[in-house]
Amino acid sequence: MRYLTAGESHGKQQTTIIEGLPARMPLTQDDINHSLLRRQKGHGRGKRMQIEKDLVDIVGGVRHGYTLGSPIALVVHNDDFKHWIDVMGEDPVEEDQKIRRVVTRARPGHADLNGALKYGHRDMRNILERSSARETTARVAAGAVAKTLLKHLDIEIVGYVKEIAGIKAAEKPELSIKEKIKISEESPVRCLDETVGKQMMDAIDIAKKEGDSIGGVCEVSIEGLPAGLGSYVHYDRKLDGRIAGAVQSINAFKGVEFGIGFEAARKNGSDVHDEILWSEERGFYRRTNRLGGFEGGMTTGMPVIVKGVMKPIPTLYKPLQSVDIESKEPFNASIERSDSCAVPAAAVVMEHVVAFEVAKAILEQFPNDQFPKLKEAIDQYREEIRCF
Amino acid sequence: MRYLTAGESHGKQQTTIIEGLPARMPLTQDDINHSLLRRQKGHGRGKRMQIEKDLVDIVGGVRHGYTLGSPIALVVHNDDFKHWIDVMGEDPVEEDQKIRRVVTRARPGHADLNGALKYGHRDMRNILERSSARETTARVAAGAVAKTLLKHLDIEIVGYVKEIAGIKAAEKPELSIKEKIKISEESPVRCLDETVGKQMMDAIDIAKKEGDSIGGVCEVSIEGLPAGLGSYVHYDRKLDGRIAGAVQSINAFKGVEFGIGFEAARKNGSDVHDEILWSEERGFYRRTNRLGGFEGGMTTGMPVIVKGVMKPIPTLYKPLQSVDIESKEPFNASIERSDSCAVPAAAVVMEHVVAFEVAKAILEQFPNDQFPKLKEAIDQYREEIRCF
Amino acid sequence: MRYLTAGESHGKQQTTIIEGLPARMPLTQDDINHSLLRRQKGHGRGKRMQIEKDLVDIVGGVRHGYTLGSPIALVVHNDDFKHWIDVMGEDPVEEDQKIRRVVTRARPGHADLNGALKYGHRDMRNILERSSARETTARVAAGAVAKTLLKHLDIEIVGYVKEIAGIKAAEKPELSIKEKIKISEESPVRCLDETVGKQMMDAIDIAKKEGDSIGGVCEVSIEGLPAGLGSYVHYDRKLDGRIAGAVQSINAFKGVEFGIGFEAARKNGSDVHDEILWSEERGFYRRTNRLGGFEGGMTTGMPVIVKGVMKPIPTLYKPLQSVDIESKEPFNASIERSDSCAVPAAAVVMEHVVAFEVAKAILEQFPNDQFPKLKEAIDQYREEIRCF
Amino acid sequence: MRYLTAGESHGKQQTTIIEGLPARMPLTQDDINHSLLRRQKGHGRGKRMQIEKDLVDIVGGVRHGYTLGSPIALVVHNDDFKHWIDVMGEDPVEEDQKIRRVVTRARPGHADLNGALKYGHRDMRNILERSSARETTARVAAGAVAKTLLKHLDIEIVGYVKEIAGIKAAEKPELSIKEKIKISEESPVRCLDETVGKQMMDAIDIAKKEGDSIGGVCEVSIEGLPAGLGSYVHYDRKLDGRIAGAVQSINAFKGVEFGIGFEAARKNGSDVHDEILWSEERGFYRRTNRLGGFEGGMTTGMPVIVKGVMKPIPTLYKPLQSVDIESKEPFNASIERSDSCAVPAAAVVMEHVVAFEVAKAILEQFPNDQFPKLKEAIDQYREEIRCF
Repeated sequence: MRYLTAGESHGKQQTTIIEGLPARMPLTQDDINHSLLRRQKGHGRGKRMQIEKDLVDIVGGVRHGYTLGSPIALVVHNDDFKHWIDVMGEDPVEEDQKIRRVVTRARPGHADLNGALKYGHRDMRNILERSSARETTARVAAGAVAKTLLKHLDIEIVGYVKEIAGIKAAEKPELSIKEKIKISEESPVRCLDETVGKQMMDAIDIAKKEGDSIGGVCEVSIEGLPAGLGSYVHYDRKLDGRIAGAVQSINAFKGVEFGIGFEAARKNGSDVHDEILWSEERGFYRRTNRLGGFEGGMTTGMPVIVKGVMKPIPTLYKPLQSVDIESKEPFNASIERSDSCAVPAAAVVMEHVVAFEVAKAILEQFPNDQFPKLKEAIDQYREEIRCF
Repeated sequence: MRYLTAGESHGKQQTTIIEGLPARMPLTQDDINHSLLRRQKGHGRGKRMQIEKDLVDIVGGVRHGYTLGSPIALVVHNDDFKHWIDVMGEDPVEEDQKIRRVVTRARPGHADLNGALKYGHRDMRNILERSSARETTARVAAGAVAKTLLKHLDIEIVGYVKEIAGIKAAEKPELSIKEKIKISEESPVRCLDETVGKQMMDAIDIAKKEGDSIGGVCEVSIEGLPAGLGSYVHYDRKLDGRIAGAVQSINAFKGVEFGIGFEAARKNGSDVHDEILWSEERGFYRRTNRLGGFEGGMTTGMPVIVKGVMKPIPTLYKPLQSVDIESKEPFNASIERSDSCAVPAAAVVMEHVVAFEVAKAILEQFPNDQFPKLKEAIDQYREEIRCF
Repeated sequence: MRYLTAGESHGKQQTTIIEGLPARMPLTQDDINHSLLRRQKGHGRGKRMQIEKDLVDIVGGVRHGYTLGSPIALVVHNDDFKHWIDVMGEDPVEEDQKIRRVVTRARPGHADLNGALKYGHRDMRNILERSSARETTARVAAGAVAKTLLKHLDIEIVGYVKEIAGIKAAEKPELSIKEKIKISEESPVRCLDETVGKQMMDAIDIAKKEGDSIGGVCEVSIEGLPAGLGSYVHYDRKLDGRIAGAVQSINAFKGVEFGIGFEAARKNGSDVHDEILWSEERGFYRRTNRLGGFEGGMTTGMPVIVKGVMKPIPTLYKPLQSVDIESKEPFNASIERSDSCAVPAAAVVMEHVVAFEVAKAILEQFPNDQFPKLKEAIDQYREEIRCF
Repeated sequence: MRYLTAGESHGKQQTTIIEGLPARMPLTQDDINHSLLRRQKGHGRGKRMQIEKDLVDIVGGVRHGYTLGSPIALVVHNDDFKHWIDVMGEDPVEEDQKIRRVVTRARPGHADLNGALKYGHRDMRNILERSSARETTARVAAGAVAKTLLKHLDIEIVGYVKEIAGIKAAEKPELSIKEKIKISEESPVRCLDETVGKQMMDAIDIAKKEGDSIGGVCEVSIEGLPAGLGSYVHYDRKLDGRIAGAVQSINAFKGVEFGIGFEAARKNGSDVHDEILWSEERGFYRRTNRLGGFEGGMTTGMPVIVKGVMKPIPTLYKPLQSVDIESKEPFNASIERSDSCAVPAAAVVMEHVVAFEVAKAILEQFPNDQFPKLKEAIDQYREEIRCF
């Protein structure tokens, strides 16, 4: 399974094509819209999120509620494009019309300057339109399709917020994944701990008032994965490696870790590894899950736990110093939008990005033409490893 | 540029094929042996490392000290194989001969159990031989070729140890990369801070005495990269994402972060982003480098700083509980080797793994047939962006 | 450069995403529409072609007439979809509504039966909608973008018809590629020889009258390619191999050959190879071009000449025997449309499919971020090899 | 499944790494040596073939006669390397030592000139060593592994010679594939028709005497493939396309066709398509097999029949005119070896190259971790489509 996305922030639409899904899997626009809506929520989002509701149009690969096996094309239209035709239209314009609108002030923390140097763009709108977080719409759409596949294989996945501006939520190992889904959905900051969630909201409000921005840590949890997804045999087939790569590629993410992650550097081996137990009902299982569900680049059958860190949004009322690429004069970097914290939305994006990699790994090692046969094969494999 | 590796820990050899290098790049066995040797050093390594010196044999793609443009094949022989022929030979054997040697005791923290479930192996030697850290020899060999390319493009890269068992080395921003290379090479734990290095060695000795193992954090630093490597235009072209995926795929790694990494969750945006400055001599540059040399998945022209965390080695004198996959009886997991800390070696591995991804990114966007033309193009690009 | 396509024949639209184009390349909807229009012409096409004019909508990656460097998304809407909503809609429908419309009669020569067996579809509309020649719209759109890139690099490419129903056009080595473009465009069967073209039209008319269909041979010619595109160093980098794979993957194509192709089996080596000459003005060149512009999987600098054979369209008035997949009763395969010869259109498709592979190969070995720099690099390389 | 090869003609060895094979598949060195031996036979081969017997050394991925699931590394040593150390050694040499040995005379029909222009090599030995047919050893080795997989799935494949120097063997539809394997193996020119085979040998002898070379057409036949391998859903998943690309990439091949191939341009649709029949025992099958076992890029369940054309070997006693790249003086191209016809060997190479693509396609759509489960899944699928 592979996918490509296209689309600029103020262009006509976000487009996604996903190739490699099995035929005869149930899939509806509602499955995807549900995900798109979740991405738009969250305390601290700017106004744009509240006004425009993203809705998907499935324009290929699905018929009468089922996948055909052919590539799936997804479109999310930008309703606002009509106001941006002059700025973002695809047709050639006169040179002087271009010059009036040129963005020459590079914003620190964005792709603006590096993109300009790389591509030789002197109008940095040519970069910021694509490097925008708007692109995560397309990735969430792709992930929503992957999540639908996982759901029908009895695999559940959820993203939530572990930390904002240094305020950390405690571990909640007692919660089932269904509870995690429910609680995080009800929290305006997608936090599993209501009290901490309120502190996070306060921190967001303060940051907003001060014209500053704050980041945080998202966690994604997956249950229902059989042991043995991914492979140790070649480095690029390790599933944790692929997930790490995909998470790191989300806009504004600066790190990723599995299970206790960086804490593993501070503990003895005897406190890090997960002892192996066995019972007739469960087969092999682990006493603990410090390694976050991965050993040797493969799932262990325990829940997958992966964290990603998002830096504070770089566009601020409290400005950063920068330089105009034409005049070379310093200036204080301008504001493009008013979110002060996008971490709750990022948890949704991360959930979907991880879902895609997991679904892809499943389709690589199990029969992938027909969804009913895939399901049967996975169920049979689950039984085999239980009785191994 | 792409590569494949093959080889089991006690098999005949580690083999690497690298495809996609430019022609006419200087490359010698010494370039690679230097890297292999560095991988084998480090306080706390077991005896095997001290006895066998890995030496590469270039068996394809190089003639008279220069690359041909054709695929490069690298072999590191296992001198010890002669003692392992019965156990690891490729020829069919009688069933009863197999049964005598079968490994049925799954070690926690290794690929043993998950690999057995996945591949249906009932003799876990079939897994542990490949999932062994021995495979990093092949990755270091590939990385050594990449490092040679970088070196001739005036790009320097070094891996060192930031933390072992909770003992952290301070930041050393005052050190040039050449100093980092020199100091880390002289330290038995590859630490830039001599005093902290000694504490680390003590911690390793204590862990060894107690039959426990300890992990740590490695950091890789790269200087000389122009801005604009990698791209924001599609998620899988972000260079930090690719590096994250590659680092996470190193045996025993549990997380990766760039610049201040997870600390970004604890700071205000105004304290995270790197303000943009400009001078006639340097062109654009940054006041700080908190983002570790990446914005928008592209290099910023500042040093790349990436950290990875390695968990403690799972094989211990102080045993972990596990289960025999045949008898289903619990047992205390056995010892295969005696390293108590592999973090210094892991820093070398990580350096090489990162080097490969960076070299690959360079070859994707610059002319890649002839090394002299590549060098010319990079130098010209450096000048262009300085005068942008 | 890579691309994905999606879309069913009677679905909402054909969608193409192309990733990996350089920034700052001129590209307009007209460039693509010109190609789409050419695909729809040709003596012997059915009515659908004449009624619906395919027009592209660029919905990503282009601004003010230039590429941004970000992925390019192209949409060709199916105007007719409004009449097909019930049959092809993406929303779930009641089971009985499905049953009424089910296609159970497998047509020989189509993907119907094999697709049904593979994907477990019992309604073969689920296959035929995607395996339709309608998909070539998306491939022509992708190829039109590639052709635009080639054009701006002074590389010209044209597809025309060499043979229909055994009627062969003579070689026309005296024609320049510009003349080939002009003459083929004016011919209703895209034949370079007017007299032969008329015979082809007659053959098409006869086939139509008899309710039969006929196939033919298309040829694609490219001029302006420098020597050394593609590479012998690894089998999957040979450019002729990639072109062969791409051409063979066009609907209804059954073979591909370069230069004299299969005739090479009937000649002595001394009559097959192209002797090497040199002059100060031209550098190295060849006395002949029997090998069609390729040696060692690389271009020779001579025109690329590649032929592909298209089988007769399988849907016929003169029916073929088949079997209903439900009743297992034999029947005579039904008619879905009335083209009796699609070879002239196939020449346009093949031209675009080949253009994509050539453009991709160029972008792999030359600098690919900025179009102006790509052009400069190619021009410089041309000069270098002239003076080699 | 993917593979990389490395190695120069007179270098130390040919190396192949294959990644992605299932675990627990029987595989021995004999399986591969059998193929290597077959590649070296054939009337008209030069002396080198008769003297050096290629033997494989499996140096990774196989233990006790079974695959481990880890990458497979294969080495074929060049016994002759000891005489070539000075010319082909990897260590740096003095400049004057290089100059003495430089190849500056480009041979028409080889990669020499294009490779020199591309990579900037002024010593064309740097090209001819890799572009040599010696590389097909590594591809045959990879294909032998694929063939072993196919064999254990009850799929048989054979390559033989259809035509040499215009002398064509008749179709032999009455022969079973086992007979084809046996007869072609006994024929010094791998021809299924003994009388024609003798004519071919005469033609080879005459060509040799005249100092000329001749080419021919190879055919590969596969039986036992279920319908539905490959897919129409995306152009690059069509299995005939992939096979075409792989065959075209064999040294000296100039075209490829399926079933009646280019003849399809000369027949009416009613004489091209394969009518569909059904019986309770066989399920769906075809009255004829003109399309060579492919419809819609998928197998039909009928035998796969693919042809490839090999041009005459370019190195000749009867010389071709060329130019020295340094002096720019014309010369008559020299002789490197004395084969006058390599078509019988090419049939073996093509058989293995096709085998690899078919095995790869199988592993992409069926469960691929464990060979016994793969076999079970394929057998079950065969039964399902028989009862569809």
